[in-house]
Amino acid sequence: MTYKNLFEEIRNKASFLCVGLDTEKEKIPSFLLNEKDPLFAFNKKIVDATAQHAVAYKINSAFYESCGADGWISLGKTVKYIKDNYPGIFVIADAKRGDIGNTSRMYAKAFLENMPFDAITVAPYMGEDSVAPFLAFPGKWAIILALTSNKGADDFQYHSDDGIKLFERVISVSRKWGNTDNTMFVIGATKPEMFREVRKIVPDHFLLVPGVGAQGGSLAEVAKFGMNNSCGLLVNSSRAIIFADSTRDFANTAALKALEMQTEMKEYLRQKKII
Amino acid sequence: MTYKNLFEEIRNKASFLCVGLDTEKEKIPSFLLNEKDPLFAFNKKIVDATAQHAVAYKINSAFYESCGADGWISLGKTVKYIKDNYPGIFVIADAKRGDIGNTSRMYAKAFLENMPFDAITVAPYMGEDSVAPFLAFPGKWAIILALTSNKGADDFQYHSDDGIKLFERVISVSRKWGNTDNTMFVIGATKPEMFREVRKIVPDHFLLVPGVGAQGGSLAEVAKFGMNNSCGLLVNSSRAIIFADSTRDFANTAALKALEMQTEMKEYLRQKKII
Repeated sequence: MTYKNLFEEIRNKASFLCVGLDTEKEKIPSFLLNEKDPLFAFNKKIVDATAQHAVAYKINSAFYESCGADGWISLGKTVKYIKDNYPGIFVIADAKRGDIGNTSRMYAKAFLENMPFDAITVAPYMGEDSVAPFLAFPGKWAIILALTSNKGADDFQYHSDDGIKLFERVISVSRKWGNTDNTMFVIGATKPEMFREVRKIVPDHFLLVPGVGAQGGSLAEVAKFGMNNSCGLLVNSSRAIIFADSTRDFANTAALKALEMQTEMKEYLRQKKII
Repeated sequence: MTYKNLFEEIRNKASFLCVGLDTEKEKIPSFLLNEKDPLFAFNKKIVDATAQHAVAYKINSAFYESCGADGWISLGKTVKYIKDNYPGIFVIADAKRGDIGNTSRMYAKAFLENMPFDAITVAPYMGEDSVAPFLAFPGKWAIILALTSNKGADDFQYHSDDGIKLFERVISVSRKWGNTDNTMFVIGATKPEMFREVRKIVPDHFLLVPGVGAQGGSLAEVAKFGMNNSCGLLVNSSRAIIFADSTRDFANTAALKALEMQTEMKEYLRQKKII
């Protein structure tokens, strides 16, 4: 998928919402546990209910790996279901992979070749040869961790060399490995003022923004400081949408929560004259 | 497994060899492809042939993930086979995981609870809450990436704040999250002189050392600069052992390659008066 395709989807839906399928077996409605593949059954219903409001899904592999080989099958079925039924939607493997070159190639094969993900999140610590294999697939994207939404982000990401913080260096160095059509950066919503600094380095790139909702980030501030003329944002919400309701009505509630976010996003896109 | 258990295994075998099971389907002897589970069939033969010379195995999850759910099954069977048949051997999931706390818990569950791995490699970029869940299992270890063996290590790991390089900060900060009984650090063999700096910060910790063999690091230099009085080293070799021979005799050749390394290691352990 190209930058242009993604921007079109954003304008068509008046949304830059990414729904995070952090599908934890212990948290899905209990009646679904009778299904043959509970994780997929849950995801299918969530996707069908929210797809009209979302431009992206982010599937965090940890929740599937914790269910072993069965979870791996649920993961593959979920991404295939989304791409088969909603081909305009951008699907992200939130896997935070990264290893030496010949090993990263195997991860890239697993997620971008064997499964139809559009993108994968990658850890920058091991540098260029650990990321390059993910950029070798036409139309596929690497989404590089830069400034994350968690408390531990403070431990190393602000480590400052001659005034340049590590996360700034990660962005300024790694943006040269690819281009705006195959590279995004993860910037957490929990420190919205940092979007100003980020936009000085990468005015045009898309940013994947976790941390709105359960983690406390503000959508208004992310939009204010992070949006560019092509929107340039995919704002993720996981638990606040998918686990808002544990009754048989969970998918409708998820749709309402997604609609709430989309309605707010529409307003920010209007203010920026994007729609 | 404790630090003491591991040191005993090292003394008993006069070895600090870790064999890396980077089992790439395209590289295993072709006659094994007729087996029902080729990756496991290969690993079983390699393990049976090399276990007398090795104190650890490192199974890189990328190679298994690239084979989908079947690969995940092969991964689980391999670690179970090793722990069932060679319980004194330390088995590492080389998975380089790391995410926000509730997600890292899922990765920890996948590798340290659902599968009997003794340890998992983790990426430090996201800080303490991304690593802590891996330290919550008694007898299990987190092996934190510090200075890696690849070219891309230069991109960020030397980023220097007030004279303190990022990899040094990673070690000095993260050593406080656990202790010598549950934390190791990855230090690549390709820059052996850096072991001096590392040993100033963590004189007692075990270090997992990749990069000897195919990547060009020197075992002699690693031992010279990195060994402490409890050895404190697990030196990994993957391709140079497991893919040394692609004929039906591959396991015997792997045993010979492992024996060669163990013989050299024995000499360094003697020089240090550890055996």
